Amino acid sequence: MQQTVARYLIFFQYTGSKYSGVMKAPAHQAVQGVGNHLENAVRKLKPVNEVCVSISSRTDTGVHALCNSAHVDIQRRADKPPLSEQSLLEALNFQLKEEPIRITRAYRVHSDFHARYQAQSRTYVYRLALGCQHHTLMPLTEKDLCWALRDTRLNIDAMREASALLLGTHDFSTFRALSSDAPFKCPVKTLDLAQLEPGESFSQRHFQRDIQFWELTFKSRSFLYRQVRRMTGVLVAIGQGRLSVSKIQDLLEARDSLAFPNNLTAPAHGLFLTNVQYRDTDLVASMSEEQ
Amino acid sequence: MQQTVARYLIFFQYTGSKYSGVMKAPAHQAVQGVGNHLENAVRKLKPVNEVCVSISSRTDTGVHALCNSAHVDIQRRADKPPLSEQSLLEALNFQLKEEPIRITRAYRVHSDFHARYQAQSRTYVYRLALGCQHHTLMPLTEKDLCWALRDTRLNIDAMREASALLLGTHDFSTFRALSSDAPFKCPVKTLDLAQLEPGESFSQRHFQRDIQFWELTFKSRSFLYRQVRRMTGVLVAIGQGRLSVSKIQDLLEARDSLAFPNNLTAPAHGLFLTNVQYRDTDLVASMSEEQ
Repeated sequence: MQQTVARYLIFFQYTGSKYSGVMKAPAHQAVQGVGNHLENAVRKLKPVNEVCVSISSRTDTGVHALCNSAHVDIQRRADKPPLSEQSLLEALNFQLKEEPIRITRAYRVHSDFHARYQAQSRTYVYRLALGCQHHTLMPLTEKDLCWALRDTRLNIDAMREASALLLGTHDFSTFRALSSDAPFKCPVKTLDLAQLEPGESFSQRHFQRDIQFWELTFKSRSFLYRQVRRMTGVLVAIGQGRLSVSKIQDLLEARDSLAFPNNLTAPAHGLFLTNVQYRDTDLVASMSEEQ
Repeated sequence: MQQTVARYLIFFQYTGSKYSGVMKAPAHQAVQGVGNHLENAVRKLKPVNEVCVSISSRTDTGVHALCNSAHVDIQRRADKPPLSEQSLLEALNFQLKEEPIRITRAYRVHSDFHARYQAQSRTYVYRLALGCQHHTLMPLTEKDLCWALRDTRLNIDAMREASALLLGTHDFSTFRALSSDAPFKCPVKTLDLAQLEPGESFSQRHFQRDIQFWELTFKSRSFLYRQVRRMTGVLVAIGQGRLSVSKIQDLLEARDSLAFPNNLTAPAHGLFLTNVQYRDTDLVASMSEEQ
């Protein structure tokens, strides 16, 4: 009797600085994606089936995640029981230990569960550090983990006013970067959260310089390609007084990727995917049904 | 006419994970010290004299610094003026850019200034993270930057009571680890600050786990070898209820390195040197006197 295939949803974190992004890179590419390392780790568990890790939320080169998710099927030899959630988590972390990638949670899910399509929301946090005349003057503990701006202050009120205009349902075409991937996806998205709050850092209190941190948080069911970095770039330009608050409205109304101002996309290394949410009921597998 | 030697005080930061410590390692040692990289960087500026970087405050393998200091003499060719403070800072950072070491400030100082002996105080911060069942479950942004404890809480009141007993002037012999370096130094030190405060971390708010950070701050003119890590280890054991508050008094009174309980030294990677202070007047060189 052949063992049933078990499907798992895994949540994982990574610092993105050394990867080509979260998606699996083609074999010939020198720099690998987080996905390559995840698949290799699953393969080390010697499943009978071909391994394919389906990642829920795309992040680019240099972007980090405190929480991303993926599903994967594991079929073991007939004489072996399915891996428990905890065993899977520990075994994958053991395999990944050389890499800045860690599995944080694992759930056995229904065989038709899909990490990407069943995600209810994604949350991104963009970290800004103010008052840094040169990147060498940042605390090294923040290296590649925030966007260091020379400005000592931003017009926070204007940024908050502008981010409120992004809330709700809009055609975000202007905020989508052109990409060969799925250019025909619907550009209408509903932004549930766009907030700006003071950020935190250990080094802020102890480093001998006045560096302030701010965090932009965005939550939506899904985002367009580079949407968060483009929204952040525009909000920062508004905070710097380089754009007026009403520019947000103009950009939304343009509904055109090419209408986005040049060189305004925020750099990748300040961006963190911090949550991918599912319905609680999706995280409870019916084991009887599976067997 | 030969150019005068210019002495500089430099402040620098580093993450210590990849170094054998801050002190220069011998040539045959595979892992280098921060000091080796500093000296190499100064040598790249092609001074006429032999380069020797005198570091003010020793830190061990894995210990970090947001602020350490050193003095160095630079004698340039007769046809070149002395380097300005800003030029020195930028040139050294350019040379160091591959390393997690950065010069944060540079001062031209008197020719008899000594970075180590003229330091008025050193401040260390030890970072604790609570509620981490396994080190793989820590946010990766905190990897090697704190001591991750399984405990979900510590008896903070007891720890504060105990740290108050460390304040002031004591013979800290029990808190000194034995070392071949200068074993005959006076073990009487005056601790000006020993405080425990909630810590901060970006990931605390956004990581999907309840991780609390605490910071122990110690300030003294100088410290004995491993004193901060030993004091921290005892305070944590008191917070965990494994030692009573009065044990601090017993340890101080024992005045014996060997009386220190086994395996209680806190790990290196949670420790940060955060400040080395000098008199303001020491940071103003009298250029006329030098030339």
